[in-house]
Amino acid sequence: MASEFDIIRRYFNRPVKRALLGVGDDCALIEGNAGEALAVTTDMLVEDRHFLRGTDALKLGHKALAVNLSDLAAVGAAPRYATLALSLPEADETWLAQFSRGLFGLADTFGVEIIGGDTTRGPRTISITAIGAVPADLVLRRDGARVGDEVWLSGCTGDAALALAHQRLEINLSGAALAHCLTRLQTPVPCVALGLALRGIATSAIDVSDGLVADLGHIAERSGVALELRYADLPQSRALKGCADARLVQQCLLAGGDDYELAFTARPDARAKIEQLAADLGLTLTCIGKVGAAEPGQVSVIDPAGNDMQLTYKGFDHFGS
Amino acid sequence: MASEFDIIRRYFNRPVKRALLGVGDDCALIEGNAGEALAVTTDMLVEDRHFLRGTDALKLGHKALAVNLSDLAAVGAAPRYATLALSLPEADETWLAQFSRGLFGLADTFGVEIIGGDTTRGPRTISITAIGAVPADLVLRRDGARVGDEVWLSGCTGDAALALAHQRLEINLSGAALAHCLTRLQTPVPCVALGLALRGIATSAIDVSDGLVADLGHIAERSGVALELRYADLPQSRALKGCADARLVQQCLLAGGDDYELAFTARPDARAKIEQLAADLGLTLTCIGKVGAAEPGQVSVIDPAGNDMQLTYKGFDHFGS
Repeated sequence: MASEFDIIRRYFNRPVKRALLGVGDDCALIEGNAGEALAVTTDMLVEDRHFLRGTDALKLGHKALAVNLSDLAAVGAAPRYATLALSLPEADETWLAQFSRGLFGLADTFGVEIIGGDTTRGPRTISITAIGAVPADLVLRRDGARVGDEVWLSGCTGDAALALAHQRLEINLSGAALAHCLTRLQTPVPCVALGLALRGIATSAIDVSDGLVADLGHIAERSGVALELRYADLPQSRALKGCADARLVQQCLLAGGDDYELAFTARPDARAKIEQLAADLGLTLTCIGKVGAAEPGQVSVIDPAGNDMQLTYKGFDHFGS
Repeated sequence: MASEFDIIRRYFNRPVKRALLGVGDDCALIEGNAGEALAVTTDMLVEDRHFLRGTDALKLGHKALAVNLSDLAAVGAAPRYATLALSLPEADETWLAQFSRGLFGLADTFGVEIIGGDTTRGPRTISITAIGAVPADLVLRRDGARVGDEVWLSGCTGDAALALAHQRLEINLSGAALAHCLTRLQTPVPCVALGLALRGIATSAIDVSDGLVADLGHIAERSGVALELRYADLPQSRALKGCADARLVQQCLLAGGDDYELAFTARPDARAKIEQLAADLGLTLTCIGKVGAAEPGQVSVIDPAGNDMQLTYKGFDHFGS
């Protein structure tokens, strides 16, 4: 079966004329006011696919907006507006009250106005379109990575995937580790401030939603470069460090998905600036690899002995098995 | 059960600060480039609710965009961009090829660029967000109708509802009438040129998607006026004139829905201009009533004898029975 990315490419990826940037980055860009570009992004969450039946409505309202704000952050845009299309099996007022609390809670945190929407009866599905603003010359794109750049990651990956593994009874988390991973899965906080701070510093950026290697693959492909990640340098949460299953840990780190961290590239001489903004924002930013020229479009992961781990992690494909 | 409008109002209708116009009109409005407002609208179509299983994908691609362009037309905006969120049970390439043909066919007709999207596996659901541009001081809003204005309608209402009645085996259409009504239901053409032409002429406007009386009710409510429609003046297609069931005809005309015509108000002295632009655009524009002060928020329909028909048509409520 064709992958999600193949489908998008084949049927919906056409060159744009008026828009500043069309399909293929975290956001599309259109002309806004006074040199500003408006970044536009859409995500759809479907019950039983992106969230389990019975998922807490408050958390779902939060997450549905968070995943869109994460896309805005990845292009360096300040979030401004969102529209909501909502399909529900019934007009359950308790559910709606909680969902809207979660949605508006996050919206208020980041100054996002919900400007319109559509509600209908049907399978529980949430589609949000978010709009943000970024100076047109400071947009963080996927195609700006250059040979010699370093690869960076905010926070760490894998916690959300670990929570999913717990929910699927593949592992058994408890206590603080469980609470931490569930929070990361259910109420991710988009890296809005980091996206803004990386304007003029990052040469490319993407948000990690489908798995670290898969998402960095988009940067590699669009930039026409190779990315080489050092496995030993990938930051791990305490929860992940406490997991005895080394293979699961590796999967979570490299292909977990649902992380909503930012991965980005920057010139080596930007290192001091990046360390300063990490301190200013209270974030962990880790240099996890470098940009090379061999095999453009490829992402390789090097083990501590210096060997290519020859991974075939493909990330989360919405039409894959 | 609460109606769709109650739900929107209760949980998602909050005042906006930065946006020029929030929830409650055909589109939201945000600041665009150089005095231009950007109009933003979202519609979601769900299988078995808005379209039947097995609906021709080409027609569906057309209609999914058409309903959004109709909202843009209703505020006088020139369509520019759209994003597509698509949930499908499987990545059926035949279906996708047809759907994208229908979508891009209409997009090309009106110069709309598809700038982004999301595809996922799930129940067949299409959510499109469309963005258009309109000079901020020429926006056609719902709240501008004034006592003494006349009420106008483009084309005629009821054909799509008549096609639905045929599909439900409530009536039996055939030949040209069937073909006409099915076209109106499946591939409506949004009144884009009319929306642009009504800038500076209409005092208020709305697109007729949920039924004539219900949609005009939004103008009455938001403008704080009463609308009085003359039943005998409502234009009827040949198909509707050929229908023997007077009660069904009345329902189709007043509460059919899925018409995607524009209903608008204008001062009586604009009549010559309106007749001229009808001629220029090759459209039928009919004066169907007037704006009064009695019972603000109400829409009444007067029969040929001058009596109030005391209708309780509520239009299409997505959460109603």
